[in-house]
Amino acid sequence: MAFTETCLSVTQKMFKQKKTCRKLYSIQHLLAKRNRSTVSQNEPEKCLKPDIDITLCKSSKLNDNFTSILKSGAQINFGTIFTDHMIKIYYDKHSGGWQKPYITPLEHLSLHPAAKVLHYATEVFEGMKAYRSVHGQMNMFRPELNLQRLNASAKRVGLPEIDQDILLKCIERLVSIDNEWLPVSAPFSLYIRPNLIGTEGVLGVANADTALLYVIMCTVGPYFSSKFKSVKLMANPNFTRAWPGGCGDFKLGANYAATLYPQELASKLGCHQMLWLFGEDRQITEMGAMNVFIYYKNNNGENVLSTPPLNGMILPGITRRSILELTREWNEFHVEEKTFTMDELIEMNRNNQILEFFAAGTAAVISPVSSILYEGKDIVLPTMEQTTPLYQRLYDAITDIQYGRVPHEWCRIVDERPHLYDSRNYKYAN
Amino acid sequence: MAFTETCLSVTQKMFKQKKTCRKLYSIQHLLAKRNRSTVSQNEPEKCLKPDIDITLCKSSKLNDNFTSILKSGAQINFGTIFTDHMIKIYYDKHSGGWQKPYITPLEHLSLHPAAKVLHYATEVFEGMKAYRSVHGQMNMFRPELNLQRLNASAKRVGLPEIDQDILLKCIERLVSIDNEWLPVSAPFSLYIRPNLIGTEGVLGVANADTALLYVIMCTVGPYFSSKFKSVKLMANPNFTRAWPGGCGDFKLGANYAATLYPQELASKLGCHQMLWLFGEDRQITEMGAMNVFIYYKNNNGENVLSTPPLNGMILPGITRRSILELTREWNEFHVEEKTFTMDELIEMNRNNQILEFFAAGTAAVISPVSSILYEGKDIVLPTMEQTTPLYQRLYDAITDIQYGRVPHEWCRIVDERPHLYDSRNYKYAN
Repeated sequence: MAFTETCLSVTQKMFKQKKTCRKLYSIQHLLAKRNRSTVSQNEPEKCLKPDIDITLCKSSKLNDNFTSILKSGAQINFGTIFTDHMIKIYYDKHSGGWQKPYITPLEHLSLHPAAKVLHYATEVFEGMKAYRSVHGQMNMFRPELNLQRLNASAKRVGLPEIDQDILLKCIERLVSIDNEWLPVSAPFSLYIRPNLIGTEGVLGVANADTALLYVIMCTVGPYFSSKFKSVKLMANPNFTRAWPGGCGDFKLGANYAATLYPQELASKLGCHQMLWLFGEDRQITEMGAMNVFIYYKNNNGENVLSTPPLNGMILPGITRRSILELTREWNEFHVEEKTFTMDELIEMNRNNQILEFFAAGTAAVISPVSSILYEGKDIVLPTMEQTTPLYQRLYDAITDIQYGRVPHEWCRIVDERPHLYDSRNYKYAN
Repeated sequence: MAFTETCLSVTQKMFKQKKTCRKLYSIQHLLAKRNRSTVSQNEPEKCLKPDIDITLCKSSKLNDNFTSILKSGAQINFGTIFTDHMIKIYYDKHSGGWQKPYITPLEHLSLHPAAKVLHYATEVFEGMKAYRSVHGQMNMFRPELNLQRLNASAKRVGLPEIDQDILLKCIERLVSIDNEWLPVSAPFSLYIRPNLIGTEGVLGVANADTALLYVIMCTVGPYFSSKFKSVKLMANPNFTRAWPGGCGDFKLGANYAATLYPQELASKLGCHQMLWLFGEDRQITEMGAMNVFIYYKNNNGENVLSTPPLNGMILPGITRRSILELTREWNEFHVEEKTFTMDELIEMNRNNQILEFFAAGTAAVISPVSSILYEGKDIVLPTMEQTTPLYQRLYDAITDIQYGRVPHEWCRIVDERPHLYDSRNYKYAN
């Protein structure tokens, strides 16, 4: 009865708006709301329900203004638009370890001021995405790799590892519940942020006996408003991101803290990102928070795609791995994992051997680089001058899988219910 | 009226207890409570009142059980017994920067789940202490150096710097308000933890536009229950704490995260702490979270005190600096800042040139080292075999200043009101 009343009330409002797509959307919204209040009913097969305690919010923050923004194709500031719900799983070493998973409305965390995460950076995170496929389903891209890495990172900072299958089911359920926050397909996506923090309120420098794993999600737009924009890097050997015996090959909050100040210096010099160097020979390691790739012509005139090897200082990126696997499968050029120094890059660029320089990561997928500020001079790279660039082909290949344009085993269908929204109305204006 | 009633009620309880010292303590407690409710009244000169908004808790968590623990001389687990109040100062870049300081009851923090501190380790802290002098006053030891370092650390992770004088006045006020949590003199102290965190709830890797500086305090006991206990170290070149171009010379949470896992490995091998090495020549850098000192006899038979130089990988410790300044003033042996490698240490130890190996820091003051597990073998050091060891002399010299046994410019009197507690009853049993 209450549901019908709400339905009527909203339908009246809808008629005032006189917009079909919005109407369809609102109906879908209502249907979803009904689904929410009947979580124990049968759901499509892919909506697996692990033993999750679900409390849904009374009213969604989702509004027409948001959908208008998506429709307009406007840039959304990354990581600012959060969906309605979050996952929380508490850990207590002395009470049986991991507790029951919760899905709750997004809310502030209440932490003891001595919580270890706030003092000793006892924190690890992951960055993954859900995509609205061109067929209307919700997809994820190789999420099991992210959760494997999450556990590896957790171990490195003395945090407890978690059952990956259960966590993945929780994430799928969260994506399914908040799927309305992604009414459209490419180039929008739901950015998913699992975060694991040590919560024990004791000041000693030691492993945390209590922890919290939580997952929040943001609707995010494309990194590039229309076509690719290249970035300019600053390479400053005075700052190092990672080092042998450190933890640069894990996704720890601690790896990012030290990058903030150099990043600000780079911005002041008109550069978009840091190019991280290591050692006296100034090895190229990463760019910002992404893996780097150099596509070049070797001395035999053969094309080679190169990226730094996983030598303990490089984050094992999922996009990095996917690029290596794809290109090795293509078998059209050499693919190598090799360390490049700045001197080698400069020399090969001078000899016109460098074809492209780009970075890869979950957030932007691919980010082409046009120049590097190094020792007061700009190294100008020909990345954007290629007629059929490799970076574009890789971007297309990966996003084709993510958005379901090409079937592939890397694509995991999270929720098979097609969205009623007319995605053509919200197609991103290229 | 209400105050008088409380006064009577508590006085009746006191008579039941029939313990003079407890009675005196309770009276002091009540006096303090009255002072709390009249913060606008005149206070002793040293209790400077910056423009702080003070809200005192309704009832102290302090109880007889706690004082019994102190009286018994039992070990207190470090960082577990928090005082009643905390300082909070919020920062908002777009609203005039630093806001008015607050002193409030100790309470949980409410943080957005995307708060930068939880993801990118946007956090810096300090460790400092207040001491109940033998004359009953509350002292601090060179606190201005800690606050200088706090600002240097803040800058390194893109957090805002704060007015050191105002912060110091706030801390002095907090120590004064919660001074009852330290009814006794040596070897107990109030450990003071200023912590600065980025609170902006946006997932982008960037400087935080909002931040919170807060200060909490713990009553802490001595690191060593009776006389000095030496520690055993593990030196494992597979783990590195800091590196050139990194941030090991700042007090960032990020520097501690990566130490937790190796520390656990060390514990499993029966070692108390990690000895941090750097580079292919295995330079000795730090121990646990403390600076290291080697006292040795050089080839000319002269005694030398040596500590690694501030080369960007060493935390500029306040105790380290104080030891260097004291010993240079004594002018009784050579004092140098020099890098020692493991090979050099082993060779000099074999030649009986090593006299003592110890570490220094705020929490333990001095921690002597008896052996180092390295490449599967124990390097046994003669630190504990000296008849008049330097580490003991240094410990005495520093704690004499901290506890007001010897007047010194490094000692800052925070609150001149002598405590009514009979500290002799709570004198730590040596």
